[in-house]
Amino acid sequence: MTTRKPSPGKLLYAQSGGVTAVINATASAVISEARAHRIEVLAARNGILGVLNDDLLDTASLSTADVRALMHTPGGAFGSCRLKLKSLAEDRDKYVRLLETFKKHDIRYFLYNGGNDSADTALKVSALAEEFDYSLVCIGVPKTIDNDLAVTDSCPGFGSAAKYTAVSVRECALDVAAMAETSTRVFVYEVMGRHAGWLAAAAGLAARRDGDAPQVILFPEVAYDEDAFLAKVDAVVKSNGYCVVVASEGIRTASGDFVADAGGGTDSFGHTQLGGVAPYLAGRVQAVLKHKVHWAMPDYMQRSARHLASETDLAHARAVGRKAVQYALKGLNATMPVIHRVRDTPYRWTVRPAPLSDIANAEKTMPAEFISADGYGITEAARRYLQPLIRGEAYPPYGRNGLPKYLQLHFD
Amino acid sequence: MTTRKPSPGKLLYAQSGGVTAVINATASAVISEARAHRIEVLAARNGILGVLNDDLLDTASLSTADVRALMHTPGGAFGSCRLKLKSLAEDRDKYVRLLETFKKHDIRYFLYNGGNDSADTALKVSALAEEFDYSLVCIGVPKTIDNDLAVTDSCPGFGSAAKYTAVSVRECALDVAAMAETSTRVFVYEVMGRHAGWLAAAAGLAARRDGDAPQVILFPEVAYDEDAFLAKVDAVVKSNGYCVVVASEGIRTASGDFVADAGGGTDSFGHTQLGGVAPYLAGRVQAVLKHKVHWAMPDYMQRSARHLASETDLAHARAVGRKAVQYALKGLNATMPVIHRVRDTPYRWTVRPAPLSDIANAEKTMPAEFISADGYGITEAARRYLQPLIRGEAYPPYGRNGLPKYLQLHFD
Repeated sequence: MTTRKPSPGKLLYAQSGGVTAVINATASAVISEARAHRIEVLAARNGILGVLNDDLLDTASLSTADVRALMHTPGGAFGSCRLKLKSLAEDRDKYVRLLETFKKHDIRYFLYNGGNDSADTALKVSALAEEFDYSLVCIGVPKTIDNDLAVTDSCPGFGSAAKYTAVSVRECALDVAAMAETSTRVFVYEVMGRHAGWLAAAAGLAARRDGDAPQVILFPEVAYDEDAFLAKVDAVVKSNGYCVVVASEGIRTASGDFVADAGGGTDSFGHTQLGGVAPYLAGRVQAVLKHKVHWAMPDYMQRSARHLASETDLAHARAVGRKAVQYALKGLNATMPVIHRVRDTPYRWTVRPAPLSDIANAEKTMPAEFISADGYGITEAARRYLQPLIRGEAYPPYGRNGLPKYLQLHFD
Repeated sequence: MTTRKPSPGKLLYAQSGGVTAVINATASAVISEARAHRIEVLAARNGILGVLNDDLLDTASLSTADVRALMHTPGGAFGSCRLKLKSLAEDRDKYVRLLETFKKHDIRYFLYNGGNDSADTALKVSALAEEFDYSLVCIGVPKTIDNDLAVTDSCPGFGSAAKYTAVSVRECALDVAAMAETSTRVFVYEVMGRHAGWLAAAAGLAARRDGDAPQVILFPEVAYDEDAFLAKVDAVVKSNGYCVVVASEGIRTASGDFVADAGGGTDSFGHTQLGGVAPYLAGRVQAVLKHKVHWAMPDYMQRSARHLASETDLAHARAVGRKAVQYALKGLNATMPVIHRVRDTPYRWTVRPAPLSDIANAEKTMPAEFISADGYGITEAARRYLQPLIRGEAYPPYGRNGLPKYLQLHFD
């Protein structure tokens, strides 16, 4: 009989859901930390899909320079995916295929980098591995610009999107201020955030003092009332000369209808596909108030803008990657490294493990005390929370050609 | 009888038309250079409108720190305007009012910072001053992100918008590449440029090699053919997995209709108000090709993004400001300091005077040899021209709060 030579096993890393400006920084930290522990890292192509299809990349093929370049490269270098596995009962065959891929490559550590859906998947994989008596440590690694994960104080990816949003809104506001006398009086800027207004709130950081732009913020947490909205915009234009509106893609009427349902359709997570709130609101302002209006829809720009990443956010993204590997090696199964805020000012934070079961499928919307009484702005409490997350500039290196030196992996 | 004490007279600076990330850098250079020559500088509030209404700001009220801060502040610090004066015959009363304001404040130098419409206004003012025998030197100072001014090799403001566009498109392309397998396959990015495709062409710099995003660029110089466009996009998706489209707001069908005429209306320059090409094209792609699509409309973001200014562009903007003052003091009436390109590589440039009459109302579209044979890309000649303009990063200073330290002037 043969005896199987004892092996620490390999680590599998996969990216899931919408990418961010710093998810590759987490990947970079995972690979570096694993290499330090002499653990081989395989990366799934296009997230969980690559595991289902046994389409894995051996990251040993990445040079130290590549791993360093991942740190400042936006997007999802190994490919991400929108594919939510259903319950163990419904999708058992798929879960079993995952396990087969794990066994085939002697994968003993599974790090799934995503949001609450991914945390749920990692949790189910862990349960099945136990059922099949296959020793596997499953770790969820946080990532989302929506900042809507439970337990963690903030989500890697959010701080950079928040900084980009606050800076862009301040810049556009200066533009509108210059043009308002003879041209554009109302500017509408749409931000991502399906059910939580965190990014919309971050836009509020662009205002230095009361009355500064953005003068009107529309949150998914507050029911959209057209008459009240138009009245508010008109009042701001009359008193201030112009009005900057920041609207979340997820705003809904009191009856619960998405204002942007024009967008229509649903993605493979079953979420309604949004987008188009800005042109809709702009149209209403122009038609009813007769003010000249401009609008912007940054869409993917806001989650890919590595050129304006937050240093704090980058530090978070790297830390959860390092810790995820350490937790895996310690056997802290079914956990997620989360950001714990020790103090607002000076901002102090640490990373600690939290059970995936507390995070899976949960969604953290903004506390009511973060939204001003009139529903159109943020409070001091919100500023205290948000401020540290956009702090510091972490620029990517640029080439002589004036473009950032981003890494683009080419798979055969 | 009294004798009027001889005076060198004052200099009036005004901003016109759409603002840019670096027009205030030109203003800063004008003020610094004039101060060096002991010339008082008045700035018109909201461009020519401030001259008509005798609403002028004495820039002596700006501290040296303010003038330095102008160098890295986007928007139009003194206010701009969209107000085109008609012929001397039609708008004679207005031109006479301008002259009255000049006389009242002993303004002997008029620097109008704008595009070809502003060059035309400066030219007419100069003619009227001559007719009234009022000694006045009129200088046009170039500015426009559209890069469509005649004579000058490039326009201050364009290089920064071009850099922002190329970097943003590359970032969004990495995002789409990561999502394409299970989600978005086509991404449409709309750029400004009413009649000239310079910014659309700049997006082409995001591509490192053939086949890189953006795979499809739609120029105003090329008639839009929906069938050919959709066939091209579909072919790229089939071969590459995803397709990034960059579309100019000004694209038109063979019959000359603006694709985005949904936007409707006209601004006070009489230009058709555009916008909305991206959602339109995205809708066609989704409806006909059934590919999942996302789209972005940066609008004012692309001309206000001082956080990603081009160092070359900033140098141009400062140089034309300095030279404008020097030309004024030399009495080079009815001229504009223009960028003269000495060499592509290494890039060398100088500033020299050109007659306003060669620039007023002219419009420079892209040479045919800058657009690839199939009409969807840029040529090597275009790259040679565009490349130096986005070179170098000129970041604004940031505060501890993670936001740029932009100057916001408060007028009473």
